[in-house]
Amino acid sequence: MLNTLIVGASGYAGVELATYLNRHPHMNITALAVSAQSPDAGKLLSDLHPQLKGVLDLPLQPLRAAQEYAGKVDVVFLATAHEVSHALAPAFLDAGCVVFDLSGAFRVNDADFYQQYYGFSHQHAAWLDKAVYGLAEWQHGAIKEAQLIAVPGCYPTASQLALKPLIEANLLNPAQWPVINATSGVSGAGRKAALNNSFCEVSLQPYGIFNHRHHPEIVAHLGVPVIFTPHLGNFARGILATITCRLNHDVSREDVAEAFHNAYHDKPLVRLYETGVPALKAVVGLPYCDIGFDVQGEHLIVVAAEDNLLKGAASQAVQCLNIRFGFPETQSLI
Amino acid sequence: MLNTLIVGASGYAGVELATYLNRHPHMNITALAVSAQSPDAGKLLSDLHPQLKGVLDLPLQPLRAAQEYAGKVDVVFLATAHEVSHALAPAFLDAGCVVFDLSGAFRVNDADFYQQYYGFSHQHAAWLDKAVYGLAEWQHGAIKEAQLIAVPGCYPTASQLALKPLIEANLLNPAQWPVINATSGVSGAGRKAALNNSFCEVSLQPYGIFNHRHHPEIVAHLGVPVIFTPHLGNFARGILATITCRLNHDVSREDVAEAFHNAYHDKPLVRLYETGVPALKAVVGLPYCDIGFDVQGEHLIVVAAEDNLLKGAASQAVQCLNIRFGFPETQSLI
Amino acid sequence: MLNTLIVGASGYAGVELATYLNRHPHMNITALAVSAQSPDAGKLLSDLHPQLKGVLDLPLQPLRAAQEYAGKVDVVFLATAHEVSHALAPAFLDAGCVVFDLSGAFRVNDADFYQQYYGFSHQHAAWLDKAVYGLAEWQHGAIKEAQLIAVPGCYPTASQLALKPLIEANLLNPAQWPVINATSGVSGAGRKAALNNSFCEVSLQPYGIFNHRHHPEIVAHLGVPVIFTPHLGNFARGILATITCRLNHDVSREDVAEAFHNAYHDKPLVRLYETGVPALKAVVGLPYCDIGFDVQGEHLIVVAAEDNLLKGAASQAVQCLNIRFGFPETQSLI
Amino acid sequence: MLNTLIVGASGYAGVELATYLNRHPHMNITALAVSAQSPDAGKLLSDLHPQLKGVLDLPLQPLRAAQEYAGKVDVVFLATAHEVSHALAPAFLDAGCVVFDLSGAFRVNDADFYQQYYGFSHQHAAWLDKAVYGLAEWQHGAIKEAQLIAVPGCYPTASQLALKPLIEANLLNPAQWPVINATSGVSGAGRKAALNNSFCEVSLQPYGIFNHRHHPEIVAHLGVPVIFTPHLGNFARGILATITCRLNHDVSREDVAEAFHNAYHDKPLVRLYETGVPALKAVVGLPYCDIGFDVQGEHLIVVAAEDNLLKGAASQAVQCLNIRFGFPETQSLI
Repeated sequence: MLNTLIVGASGYAGVELATYLNRHPHMNITALAVSAQSPDAGKLLSDLHPQLKGVLDLPLQPLRAAQEYAGKVDVVFLATAHEVSHALAPAFLDAGCVVFDLSGAFRVNDADFYQQYYGFSHQHAAWLDKAVYGLAEWQHGAIKEAQLIAVPGCYPTASQLALKPLIEANLLNPAQWPVINATSGVSGAGRKAALNNSFCEVSLQPYGIFNHRHHPEIVAHLGVPVIFTPHLGNFARGILATITCRLNHDVSREDVAEAFHNAYHDKPLVRLYETGVPALKAVVGLPYCDIGFDVQGEHLIVVAAEDNLLKGAASQAVQCLNIRFGFPETQSLI
Repeated sequence: MLNTLIVGASGYAGVELATYLNRHPHMNITALAVSAQSPDAGKLLSDLHPQLKGVLDLPLQPLRAAQEYAGKVDVVFLATAHEVSHALAPAFLDAGCVVFDLSGAFRVNDADFYQQYYGFSHQHAAWLDKAVYGLAEWQHGAIKEAQLIAVPGCYPTASQLALKPLIEANLLNPAQWPVINATSGVSGAGRKAALNNSFCEVSLQPYGIFNHRHHPEIVAHLGVPVIFTPHLGNFARGILATITCRLNHDVSREDVAEAFHNAYHDKPLVRLYETGVPALKAVVGLPYCDIGFDVQGEHLIVVAAEDNLLKGAASQAVQCLNIRFGFPETQSLI
Repeated sequence: MLNTLIVGASGYAGVELATYLNRHPHMNITALAVSAQSPDAGKLLSDLHPQLKGVLDLPLQPLRAAQEYAGKVDVVFLATAHEVSHALAPAFLDAGCVVFDLSGAFRVNDADFYQQYYGFSHQHAAWLDKAVYGLAEWQHGAIKEAQLIAVPGCYPTASQLALKPLIEANLLNPAQWPVINATSGVSGAGRKAALNNSFCEVSLQPYGIFNHRHHPEIVAHLGVPVIFTPHLGNFARGILATITCRLNHDVSREDVAEAFHNAYHDKPLVRLYETGVPALKAVVGLPYCDIGFDVQGEHLIVVAAEDNLLKGAASQAVQCLNIRFGFPETQSLI
Repeated sequence: MLNTLIVGASGYAGVELATYLNRHPHMNITALAVSAQSPDAGKLLSDLHPQLKGVLDLPLQPLRAAQEYAGKVDVVFLATAHEVSHALAPAFLDAGCVVFDLSGAFRVNDADFYQQYYGFSHQHAAWLDKAVYGLAEWQHGAIKEAQLIAVPGCYPTASQLALKPLIEANLLNPAQWPVINATSGVSGAGRKAALNNSFCEVSLQPYGIFNHRHHPEIVAHLGVPVIFTPHLGNFARGILATITCRLNHDVSREDVAEAFHNAYHDKPLVRLYETGVPALKAVVGLPYCDIGFDVQGEHLIVVAAEDNLLKGAASQAVQCLNIRFGFPETQSLI
C-alpha cells in the first residue's frame, strides 16, 4: 500500500482523483488537502461533492506547508493552480515523494517557456529537467522511471493523441498547419464562483483565440505548428476536438488508419473507430480518449473526444501512477 | 413622452426592463444606472448583454444619489436589492417621481414584517403605507392612483394568480393548507458570481424549505396559510408552480373553471387552459402567466407558469406602468 | 457463476443492467436480447451506447421465444414493456429460471389491478401470487426466497422509501393525504423516437395528473392514499420527489429522524441526511436513494432523490439479485 | 395588405414565420397549411406551439394542392422539405404568387446540382433559372425584382456572410481552403420524432463530414472551395461557425476590418464586433448575424453566430419579403 496525499482535492479534477484512489487496491489516502486560505478547509469532501456522501467523508485539511506531509506519504497528487504546484512540488520531491502534478508548472522542459506563457520565472530548473510529461500512451518508458510526472492539460491530451500518430508517420503536409477546433465543458474552468461560469451566462463561444496557454504546450510537444481555437460549450464535462489536416500527396485513408492502429492497438485507454467519429457522450465519465477520422482527397478530419476531468486530468494521472508503480495500466479506472 | 431612469439595469430583470422601455412609444430612457460600487459602472449595457448590441448601447452610469436624477425623470424603476430600494425610493418619491420597485422593500404594508423576515428596520413607514402592491390583475384601480408600486416577487405572482380566484370564491377547504411546489430557473438568483449558480453546480433541488422570503409575502397578500417549497431547476428562466389544494365538499370542476374565468376572462396577460396544464416553454420569453388545473374528487391541482424575469418581474412592472399612465395594458409587451 | 440473459438490453435500463452484470464477479452474460421485431436486433450494444465500445461489444439477439434460452440460463432480467414481460416470464419461470422483471407486469398481487390500470387481463395469476415486490430495503426476507422478483417502478421506489418509515411508525395524520410532487429525467420515457421526448420539445411540466400508473402501485404497497403529481424535467436522468405530509399532533422532528434511522441505518443504499435535503446531482449515476427532511409544526417535507435508471430500475434489480443469491448487497454497485 | 399562405407552418421555422407575419403591419395571414398527410393537420398552431396560445390560434389546414390557394394569396412561404417545395412552387408561381422557399429546391441555378446532391431530377428548370438566392445582404437588387426567392440554408448563411467580404476583397490565400467548423442547435433537424434528436441521445458531435448538403450550396455561391464540418450541439437553437483562413501575404488586420465594414456598415441585420467574437447567446431569438474576427500573422479566425431558425431561415425570409415589397428591411423583425 502506498500512502498518498491529494492537494486541491475539492476541485473538479481533485474529487475525481480522490474517487479513483479511494477504490484503488494499492493506495491509501492519507490526507486530502486544500490551501490554508481555501474556503473549503475544514469541510468534508462529501459536503462539497454530495455524490461521495458515505463513500469518502474525509475532511479537507488546510495545507500550510508541503513539509507537513513530506515524510508521511509516498505519493502526492497536485490538483492545484500552476503557481501552487510550482511552489509545493520541490519540497515533496526533495523528501522522496513521487509527485503527479496536474498543473502546467512542469509540463515543458524549458524555463523560458514559463516566463513567456505563464508570466512567472520558473525557480526549479533542475526539477523541470527531470520532469516527465505524462502523456501516458507515448511516455510509458519515461514515466516508469520518473519522480515527477507532469500530467498534460485537457486540450493537449486530446490534440496530441489525435495528431501524434500522423506526425510520427510523416503523413501531414507541412505547408498547412493542422486546425484544431475544440469545445470543452464548463468544468474546465475549475470550481469557483465566477460570472463567466454562471449558469445563465454560459453559451457556446470561442475564447483565447491565438493565445490560450494550451497552444504552446501542444506545439512544444508535437514539434509542429498548429492553429488551436478552444470553445466553451454549454455542458459540464468533456472535450470534443475536430482537427482538420492536409495530408501529403500520396497518403491514403489506409495509411491514416495504419498510423492510428500502430500507435494505439495495444493501448487500452485509446479507442479507435473503424468507421464514424465519436460523440461526446461516448466518453463522459470514462477514462478513454476516442478517436475517429475521415479522409477526402488530401483532406483529413480527425475527431477526438475525452472527458476533460478524466483522460484530460484525473484518470490520466492515475494511469501514470499505474505505469509508474507497475500496476495494471487500467487499475481502478475501468 | 415620460422620462425614465432604470436603476439596476445590468441585472437580469433590469435588462428586460430596459428592453421593454426602449421600444415603448411613450417612454424615453433618460439613464441606466447601477450602484456607484458596481463593477458594471461605466460599461455599456450591450457589453454585458450582447443581445442588445446595436439595439441599446447606453452606458451604465454609477448612481451616487437618487437626487442626481430626481428632478430629471418622471418615472423610476428600481431593479435593485431591497436595501438599495429602501434607501433610494424616498428621495425619488419626495421629488414627485412615480417609482416602480421590483424589490421586496415595499411589498407588505407593515413595518414589523421587515424586521422579522428581512432583518432590517423599515425607515419609511409613510411611504410603506402608500405603496400599492403591483399584482396587476388584482390591483388595477389602486395602481392607477399610486405613486409607489411594489412589483410582486416572482414566486408570489404565480402563486397568487393561481390561488386568489379560488380563495375569493371561497372554494378551498380551510382545514388543509394549499401546498405550493415551485421550480425556478437560475436567473432568479440574480446576475452575480456565486458558486451555487455556477454551471457545474446547478442541479434540481429544493431550497429555503419553510423559510423563503416569498412565503410571508404570499401569505400576507392571500390572507390564508400555505406551504411553499421553492426549487432550483437546471434552466435559465421560468417558474412552474404546481399547487395542490383541498376543495370544499360541494365544489365541482365547473366551479373552479368559473372562478378562474371570472377572474381572468378580461385580463390579457393571464391565459387560462380549458384542458391540460401549461409547460414552462409556453411562457419563457413572454409576459404571460398561464394557468391550468385538474380536479379529482375534492382534490385540485393548479399549475401556473410564468417567466420569472417577465411576469415575475420586468413585464409586470411595465404592465403596472401601462395601467398607471393609462396606456394600453399590453403596450410594448406583446 | 450464474448464466444470465438480459431481455430489452438496448433500452436505457437494459444497458445499465448489462453494465453492472458485465462487471459482476458471479455473473456471466450468456446473451443480450431484444424482441424479434426490434430495429436494434443484430446490432452491437456498443453501437447503440458508445460508452460501452470495447467494454461490452455483444450483439443484441432477436428473441423469438423465451424457450430459446430457458434451459441455458439461471437468471433472466426482463427490461421490457409490461405486455412483453407478462408474455415472456412464465416460460422462463416454468423452466426454473429466477426472473427479475423491471416492468409493471407482476408488481401488484391482484389480477384485477391490471384490468383496471394497465388495460389487459392478467393471465398468470399463479405467478402473480408468488411474485415478490423487489423494494429491496423492505423485502429482504421475501426476496431471498423468491423465484420472480417484480422490481418497483422509479417513482414508487423514491416515494415508498420516503414514506414507508413514517407510515410504519404511525407518524402521519390520516386526515391529510401525503402530496408527492416528483420530477423525472427524460430517460424515464424510454429509448424511442417520440416527438414528446425530442430535445426541442422537452420542458418542465406536469403530466399524468391524477392518472399515472405509478399512483396505484404506490398506494397498493403503502396502504394509504396519496396525491401523486409527476413532472417531466429537462434533464436526462434522475428523480427528485418532494413530499409534503401532515404529522400527527405530538410528533417531533426527533420522532421523524428516529423513524428514518430505524428503517435505514443498516441499509447501504439509502443515505439519510442529518441536515438539509438532497439535490439531484448527489445520486445521478449512483445506486443510492438519498433522503432528507424538514419539519415545521405539524408540517413535514421529505425529499428523496435517486437515479431513475438505477435505484429506480437497474441497480435495484441487481441489488435484489445480490440479496436473492447471497452476494454482498452492494456487489458491483458501488 | 398582402394576403399570405404559409405552408409547413407547424415546423420550427414555420412557426417563427407565422409569428413574424402575424405582427407585420402589411401582411394578412390567409391560411396556415401543412401537407394533407401531416399528423398536425386540423390542429391549432397554438396547440403545437403553446407560446402562441391566444396570440395566433389559427388551424393548420391540410394542403391538398397548391391551386387551392393560388388565386387567394399574393405571397406564399414554403417552409417545407425540398421535394415538397419542388412540387408545390410552380403552381403558385404560375398563378402569379411571389414565393419564398425556405427549402433547398431552388437555391442553385443548375439542374444537375440536384441530381448529384439531392438525388432527384429537377423538373422546373425555367423557374430554377429565375430563382434568386435570398442572401439578403448581398442580393438586394435581385430580390427586389424576383418572383421566386430561395432563402439560403442556415449554415450557408453564416458561412457566406463571414467569408464573402473576404473573398470579394481578394484577401484569402487560394492555396489553403477555408476551414468552417460550425455547431448547430437540434432544431436544425426539424420538428419530428427521431431517436437521434431525442433528449437523451443528443450530444456534441460532428456529422455529415465531407458530405453535408450545405457544403455544395456554400461552394456554389462563394465560388471557392471550403472544408465544412457541421456539428450537432446540445442546445435547441443557434449556429456558431468558427472559420479558419489563410490570408494573402500582405493582408493586415485593418484590411480585414475594412472588408467587413465595407460589406456591412449599412446592413442593419449584420452586427460587426470591433473587438472579440460573438457568443451564441448574442443572437438566439434575434434576426442578426453577428461577426467578429482575430488575426495573427497570416492566420485569420472569423466567428459568425446566428439563430438557425431566424437569420438562418424565417427572419431572413421576412427580410427578403421586406426588400421585395419595399417595406423597411427590418420591419417586424426588431
